[in-house]
Amino acid sequence: MGAKNDDHDDNRYQEEQSARLFVHDLSKIVLPPLGVSTQNHDPWRSRGWIISPLNSKYRCWETFMVILVAYSVWFYPFELAFLAPSHHRGLYLVDVVTDLFFAADILLTFFVAYIDSKTNMIVYDSRRIANRYLSTWFVMDVASTIPYQALYLLFTGRQQVWSCYSLLGLFRFWRLVRVEELFKRLEKNIKFNYFAVRCFRLSCVALFSAHCAACLFFLLAEENHGGKTWIDDFAKYGDETNIWLRYTVAVYWSATTMTTVGYGDLRAENTRERIFITGYMLFNLGLTAYLIGNMTDLVVESARRTMEYRKSIEVASTFVNRNCLPRRLEEQVLAYMSLRFQAERMNQQRFIEELPKSIRRRVCRHLFLPAVQQVYLFKDVSIGTLTSLVSKLRAEYMPPREEVILRKEGPDEVYIIVSGEVEIVSSTTTGGESRLDGLSSGDMFGEAAALCCTPQRFTFRTKVLSQLLRLKTAMLLEAMRINHHDSVTIINNFLRVSITIYISYSANPV
Amino acid sequence: MGAKNDDHDDNRYQEEQSARLFVHDLSKIVLPPLGVSTQNHDPWRSRGWIISPLNSKYRCWETFMVILVAYSVWFYPFELAFLAPSHHRGLYLVDVVTDLFFAADILLTFFVAYIDSKTNMIVYDSRRIANRYLSTWFVMDVASTIPYQALYLLFTGRQQVWSCYSLLGLFRFWRLVRVEELFKRLEKNIKFNYFAVRCFRLSCVALFSAHCAACLFFLLAEENHGGKTWIDDFAKYGDETNIWLRYTVAVYWSATTMTTVGYGDLRAENTRERIFITGYMLFNLGLTAYLIGNMTDLVVESARRTMEYRKSIEVASTFVNRNCLPRRLEEQVLAYMSLRFQAERMNQQRFIEELPKSIRRRVCRHLFLPAVQQVYLFKDVSIGTLTSLVSKLRAEYMPPREEVILRKEGPDEVYIIVSGEVEIVSSTTTGGESRLDGLSSGDMFGEAAALCCTPQRFTFRTKVLSQLLRLKTAMLLEAMRINHHDSVTIINNFLRVSITIYISYSANPV
Amino acid sequence: MGAKNDDHDDNRYQEEQSARLFVHDLSKIVLPPLGVSTQNHDPWRSRGWIISPLNSKYRCWETFMVILVAYSVWFYPFELAFLAPSHHRGLYLVDVVTDLFFAADILLTFFVAYIDSKTNMIVYDSRRIANRYLSTWFVMDVASTIPYQALYLLFTGRQQVWSCYSLLGLFRFWRLVRVEELFKRLEKNIKFNYFAVRCFRLSCVALFSAHCAACLFFLLAEENHGGKTWIDDFAKYGDETNIWLRYTVAVYWSATTMTTVGYGDLRAENTRERIFITGYMLFNLGLTAYLIGNMTDLVVESARRTMEYRKSIEVASTFVNRNCLPRRLEEQVLAYMSLRFQAERMNQQRFIEELPKSIRRRVCRHLFLPAVQQVYLFKDVSIGTLTSLVSKLRAEYMPPREEVILRKEGPDEVYIIVSGEVEIVSSTTTGGESRLDGLSSGDMFGEAAALCCTPQRFTFRTKVLSQLLRLKTAMLLEAMRINHHDSVTIINNFLRVSITIYISYSANPV
Amino acid sequence: MGAKNDDHDDNRYQEEQSARLFVHDLSKIVLPPLGVSTQNHDPWRSRGWIISPLNSKYRCWETFMVILVAYSVWFYPFELAFLAPSHHRGLYLVDVVTDLFFAADILLTFFVAYIDSKTNMIVYDSRRIANRYLSTWFVMDVASTIPYQALYLLFTGRQQVWSCYSLLGLFRFWRLVRVEELFKRLEKNIKFNYFAVRCFRLSCVALFSAHCAACLFFLLAEENHGGKTWIDDFAKYGDETNIWLRYTVAVYWSATTMTTVGYGDLRAENTRERIFITGYMLFNLGLTAYLIGNMTDLVVESARRTMEYRKSIEVASTFVNRNCLPRRLEEQVLAYMSLRFQAERMNQQRFIEELPKSIRRRVCRHLFLPAVQQVYLFKDVSIGTLTSLVSKLRAEYMPPREEVILRKEGPDEVYIIVSGEVEIVSSTTTGGESRLDGLSSGDMFGEAAALCCTPQRFTFRTKVLSQLLRLKTAMLLEAMRINHHDSVTIINNFLRVSITIYISYSANPV
Repeated sequence: MGAKNDDHDDNRYQEEQSARLFVHDLSKIVLPPLGVSTQNHDPWRSRGWIISPLNSKYRCWETFMVILVAYSVWFYPFELAFLAPSHHRGLYLVDVVTDLFFAADILLTFFVAYIDSKTNMIVYDSRRIANRYLSTWFVMDVASTIPYQALYLLFTGRQQVWSCYSLLGLFRFWRLVRVEELFKRLEKNIKFNYFAVRCFRLSCVALFSAHCAACLFFLLAEENHGGKTWIDDFAKYGDETNIWLRYTVAVYWSATTMTTVGYGDLRAENTRERIFITGYMLFNLGLTAYLIGNMTDLVVESARRTMEYRKSIEVASTFVNRNCLPRRLEEQVLAYMSLRFQAERMNQQRFIEELPKSIRRRVCRHLFLPAVQQVYLFKDVSIGTLTSLVSKLRAEYMPPREEVILRKEGPDEVYIIVSGEVEIVSSTTTGGESRLDGLSSGDMFGEAAALCCTPQRFTFRTKVLSQLLRLKTAMLLEAMRINHHDSVTIINNFLRVSITIYISYSANPV
Repeated sequence: MGAKNDDHDDNRYQEEQSARLFVHDLSKIVLPPLGVSTQNHDPWRSRGWIISPLNSKYRCWETFMVILVAYSVWFYPFELAFLAPSHHRGLYLVDVVTDLFFAADILLTFFVAYIDSKTNMIVYDSRRIANRYLSTWFVMDVASTIPYQALYLLFTGRQQVWSCYSLLGLFRFWRLVRVEELFKRLEKNIKFNYFAVRCFRLSCVALFSAHCAACLFFLLAEENHGGKTWIDDFAKYGDETNIWLRYTVAVYWSATTMTTVGYGDLRAENTRERIFITGYMLFNLGLTAYLIGNMTDLVVESARRTMEYRKSIEVASTFVNRNCLPRRLEEQVLAYMSLRFQAERMNQQRFIEELPKSIRRRVCRHLFLPAVQQVYLFKDVSIGTLTSLVSKLRAEYMPPREEVILRKEGPDEVYIIVSGEVEIVSSTTTGGESRLDGLSSGDMFGEAAALCCTPQRFTFRTKVLSQLLRLKTAMLLEAMRINHHDSVTIINNFLRVSITIYISYSANPV
Repeated sequence: MGAKNDDHDDNRYQEEQSARLFVHDLSKIVLPPLGVSTQNHDPWRSRGWIISPLNSKYRCWETFMVILVAYSVWFYPFELAFLAPSHHRGLYLVDVVTDLFFAADILLTFFVAYIDSKTNMIVYDSRRIANRYLSTWFVMDVASTIPYQALYLLFTGRQQVWSCYSLLGLFRFWRLVRVEELFKRLEKNIKFNYFAVRCFRLSCVALFSAHCAACLFFLLAEENHGGKTWIDDFAKYGDETNIWLRYTVAVYWSATTMTTVGYGDLRAENTRERIFITGYMLFNLGLTAYLIGNMTDLVVESARRTMEYRKSIEVASTFVNRNCLPRRLEEQVLAYMSLRFQAERMNQQRFIEELPKSIRRRVCRHLFLPAVQQVYLFKDVSIGTLTSLVSKLRAEYMPPREEVILRKEGPDEVYIIVSGEVEIVSSTTTGGESRLDGLSSGDMFGEAAALCCTPQRFTFRTKVLSQLLRLKTAMLLEAMRINHHDSVTIINNFLRVSITIYISYSANPV
Repeated sequence: MGAKNDDHDDNRYQEEQSARLFVHDLSKIVLPPLGVSTQNHDPWRSRGWIISPLNSKYRCWETFMVILVAYSVWFYPFELAFLAPSHHRGLYLVDVVTDLFFAADILLTFFVAYIDSKTNMIVYDSRRIANRYLSTWFVMDVASTIPYQALYLLFTGRQQVWSCYSLLGLFRFWRLVRVEELFKRLEKNIKFNYFAVRCFRLSCVALFSAHCAACLFFLLAEENHGGKTWIDDFAKYGDETNIWLRYTVAVYWSATTMTTVGYGDLRAENTRERIFITGYMLFNLGLTAYLIGNMTDLVVESARRTMEYRKSIEVASTFVNRNCLPRRLEEQVLAYMSLRFQAERMNQQRFIEELPKSIRRRVCRHLFLPAVQQVYLFKDVSIGTLTSLVSKLRAEYMPPREEVILRKEGPDEVYIIVSGEVEIVSSTTTGGESRLDGLSSGDMFGEAAALCCTPQRFTFRTKVLSQLLRLKTAMLLEAMRINHHDSVTIINNFLRVSITIYISYSANPV
């Protein structure tokens, strides 16, 4: 038995680990199709040479590649446009190292399993992996990795500031799909604020677009041998070789155009520039629409809650005004609606009911058992009976001055007060009402009628905002029938207290 | 008993007060977590030195601070950019007084309880309050309150128009979070029009942003010793020391850029200005998107109702056209749909049913009891029985020429006419129909079949738009069974009238 | 009886009329609050001197006033800015006549009942009407009607192009609230296309805003005595007195600024113009956001249907692909989903069920009675029985090759074929299936099992897209039990045909 | 029987064809109104001279016409503005051929049936077709087809670059409604990505609008005899007859204005140009709003899924934090919610339940039969019984460590493991629990209690993410009652295995 227990503990530890891992990877669950028995129930484990795409080390590599991509696509246009050939040589090394990493990634992809988008299953078969990669992204990945300029230098020995070969380097922008994927993962991660992630992403898109346009626009001016260019007016302002100044001017133009301000101090001076700017402006039209669309989505989402609250209150308010309800009733209706909205917003009770029974039982035990154990009726009752009772409780918030139980009602429910105060009210013979007693946290009411199967003798009304646990009488009786011993305990508890109450009230006939 | 009544009245008064307070603070209810018994059931009361954040005096202080913040963040950039050192001295006093108030607020915060965002409970423990404040906002609050310029003047004796020390004053913008919070509260307050509050908020954001940009842009030109600046072209237009003129020009530029009009008469002339403008334009891209997003949200919301009405009518209209219904039927269908939309919009019946039973009973008594007491059948019936009947009534609107009860139907429901007219129709032997009699406000129908348990003998059809109260026959019989005395009264009432009717119709066989 | 019939016809005619009126005023129904008996059940009738706001003649007057308002607010700024004093004299007359009409409207308002926004009831009490008008819109209405310029001319004898008195005329813009109300009514009218009405409204807002800004901007230049103005550059282009040219330039500037194009050829030249333009630009920011918000709302609405269709098909498509269903099954699933979307879109069956029973019965009789009367089983059955049966029918569309009834199923439903074809299929002993017979429009199936209370002997499967009427067996038997005579007819019909079928199939054992 | 089979196969082939066609035309189903028997149940077949609008050849012709329209409306403005008369002659031929095709299409339309928009039925009656066409689109179609310029040339012999007759050619833009219809069809086709189609459509609208404005603006400059025009500044830059250069400049201006950049280097120089630009700018205001509205719609749609996921997780996360649940429980709750979202997203089970029974039965047989046949209990059971059982199975995904069956529960359900692992857990006497055994893919549990009608003796808990098939016990017993032979087989299977289990566990008392 000891060995078993060890084994059990060991097991439990592993399970804890797997559960933790599981929660950590919430958004990566891979559900197989219906009716298909999958042998690979652990998608996080590698098989032979084939690495799982959910493997945490591979995830790190992917993140590293994204950073490399970000550097690469951001820096390449700048390098192309602004850096004189004399500086280029030093940067070649960095470029080549970057390219080597990308080449390594291409090789690695042949050994990474993939999730079939159709069946949602992980494919570990190396032949299918190769087939898929070769027929889809392989060509683009290779095209974006070849160091065209280096090869040109190698083969011809000549070095050009700008050439068709350099333009081929724009294939690197293909790598942006990886950055896109990273952002999608970030958006699904609830650790990060959704609004912030989306805004950050949109800012990156806008800045990157302005940066690239600035670089390309400057390149156009540089490559324009003879003829007027847009930069000519600025030649007089400073040293032409000052990279920082020139980049600033280019970005200034780019931003002026992208935001459609268009001061007009920088503008196209020849046909090539006009075509480029026309294209950039039309692209910006789409980009601006995209930014606004995203922002609208975020704003609508963030304003939804306030809107719902206002609507729920306004419905009540309109009803009250339309039907000229008296002031007292109006206040009660509004208070009730406001409280209900708050409670609904948290969705607590509904959330509990949506959980599967095993989880629900544990959650209820954690939440309600301490409160239930304090109640006089359940004193000395076995923990087992209480546990089963507890999962049938419903927590409710009640606004002040709300009648929870009405006099002469059937004994359908009993209530336990978790917080707040409840008063017992009885009708006087003159039709008015007299307050008999007050109950507070830890007390129970309605159990007298429930256990005696008689109508309620008093009205129970909250004094302040109260949290009550409601238990159906049938559930209580059912629980008592199952466990005879606990049943006797409960009855004894009840009788002991009710005699006390009888004595205290006997002098005060209702 | 007298003492008791006094006590009772006193009690009632207090309760009225607390209920009123409660309604007044609709959006500030603090719900404790499930199963946790809170001892502090009155979140509006202070405890020793610790003030409740819901305390009305503290609320006033907060509002005052918001006004101070608004003044401070609006005036500081203006002071920094446009006011010559000679004027500064006089303004120091105002600034210092403002800063003293903010310092007082920092001290006060150590004595204000807070609502724990996790558990939603109010924390009164002064140690936890201090811990939380020191670890979150304290540093920023202090940084935004230190009078950097005054200190600089004090320690060095020199006075500068603009310096790094002045820029530190921009920490004051931190205080804007308080204004943000005020706006959020305003948006939740149903006393104010939602559209107006949101528009006002957006206008403030736009104006403030334009104002700050204008001030900073002017500061850039002021501080540019030598070199061309954007303001140079305007030097000739007027007195350079005319603050109003200069501010107007700066705001004109700022608005031109923010709205992306960009005339181009004012534009960046040096690198520093270009960088500033680039930043401002990109910020404006986001701001514009935010404004449009908000406006879209508001427009969608305001157009929703009209849209729903059109849809409900169009469904009916399409149905009618597609199936070529005759003209008479088409009109009835459209009238019914239109009426139903109007009634649904007000949600009155559904709203009543959502209320908890004690409130619902009172609302129904207020609304329906006067109408029910007029009905002949309930003459001399005890108020208790009527009250219980009244909470089971359902109010319904019926379009003109709608058959409420069909001949030969089962006696499931009885109706009371609140407003409008209903006619009794009987089939003639020739298959046509003859109108027997008309009923109007205060009459009842269907009760003959209900009390005799026979099928309906006539068809009842509305003549004009009518409001009817429907009562299930079962409910009526149930109420009669409970109170024997009222039952006899009802039967007597019925027989007395039905004999009259019998006599009047006996000459007119159907 | 004849007199009665005449009366009846007369009555009916009036009712027809009132019903027609009712439908014509769909959006103007006035529902009283719950439980309140209103004596004025005809809100279209006037009372003494007080006219109902729903009165059709008053509606005409209102529409006429809206046209007058449109003319007035459109023409006034133009008159103020562009028309030289020499032309003014002629226009005074038109202005005065317009103002007289508005004065008449102010007087009239004292005699028009109003709908209390709180209780939704029409108020005919002349004192309350006067009170309400005097305390709300009266002041503004009067202020917008006084002919300031004419009075100025009258009292001083002098005539000025532009003065404070002219600016007071801008009170006329107050009248725009009437135009706003007209547009709201148009939007609710389903005779007009919603998209078109909204676009027209937005265009009007944009054009009017551009027009007013152009007029005011020109006024600024006119009134600027000495100093440079924006119009100076254009003085050389043409005759200064050419109104058309000057208006064109002003509108060109206004549109350039409103659309944020901002070429920069026309721009503020002095402080007053800068302030005006700054205000106009900030106003435009809001206007543009409002236009975009409205357009987004319209686009979202118009794209919703396509989106829903795509979603419903994509769910099916994903399901089919994920679970690798065979080709044949895939097609059936997609066909079914597509058909279901089409049918749901029309909402026909659901719409019928939402109608109140009296209307529903008539609609069903109109739609289904002709089809049911053709069925052999109901030959010679009384119209009464058929009518009651018909209202229990459910129309359904079935895609081709769909099994409607499966062999060995219980006899729960019988079907009538309205259009399309159905084939009877029987299993052969070898497990395959053989096609026995085909049914087409006007046939019925499932009735054999229903009447004999045995399981279905054959499978019934559609050949083409079919429309079937489904009738619960219980409903059929219920109808037969009620009317003995019809029951015999139905049984006879059934037996006569089933013997024929028996004979024809007896040679072909299944 | 052979002949019959042939016939049957032939039939089946045809049906397969029609079904395929059916699926291929998903969005073109024509549903007749309720209760109307249509004789034309095959809307794809032509009748005599009248062609069905759904005919595939006619569809091809329509697509060809759309291409012709695209060419025609794109090229015509360009031809009008930029091509000198000397080049015109050659292009006349192309224009005339195009016009001939359009004339042919007008003739053809008289022989194509149409779908009545009111009744949704196809109309084949040639008289009604002609009536409808003549009264609606005929005039516009003819007006857009007449070759005005050719006629002018023919009758007068003169040739003008630009004339009123040329402007009549703008009627050709009427043909754009056909392109609009093509795009609507594309949007409904799920083969194409919705986002891509919408973006492509918006791009086309933007480009076409810019192109037309450029051509018309250039035309204005060309036709301006004397006076300054906007193009004057560019006259110096190059050969005036260089079409490409001039078109580039015009498009550059057009794009600058449309995107509201408005550099100001190209701007209106005379009244006619100002009016044109004003109109273009106001049109662009609407166009931009339309683009942004569309983009917002697309963005909202694409972000919806991520938003829903975040919400469902955040509700769980807030609940867990608010109520301070222990770490272990927190992880379970989050894992469950995440899994549930994934499963709900696929909607698989709900989708199956929405299918009509005949399709559902086939789908279930395809999905679940292989898994069920592996289960020991159903060994040698007839395929008929299994098929009927299989359609009552519900597939469910269970997160790891989830209790599927709790000890002492009633025997309501039995489970079959499709994938994953389940462990059997028993309570030890000390209150802890001991793991008894593990079940994996192809096993079944809960059947012991179900067949013996006793409470469950063990707890069954998943170890990893598992897919289970749930079967109500009642369904199993019902299936066993119907087929006696299979019932015996099942009992035998059960007894054989349970004895084995009994023996293996008998040494290990629980």
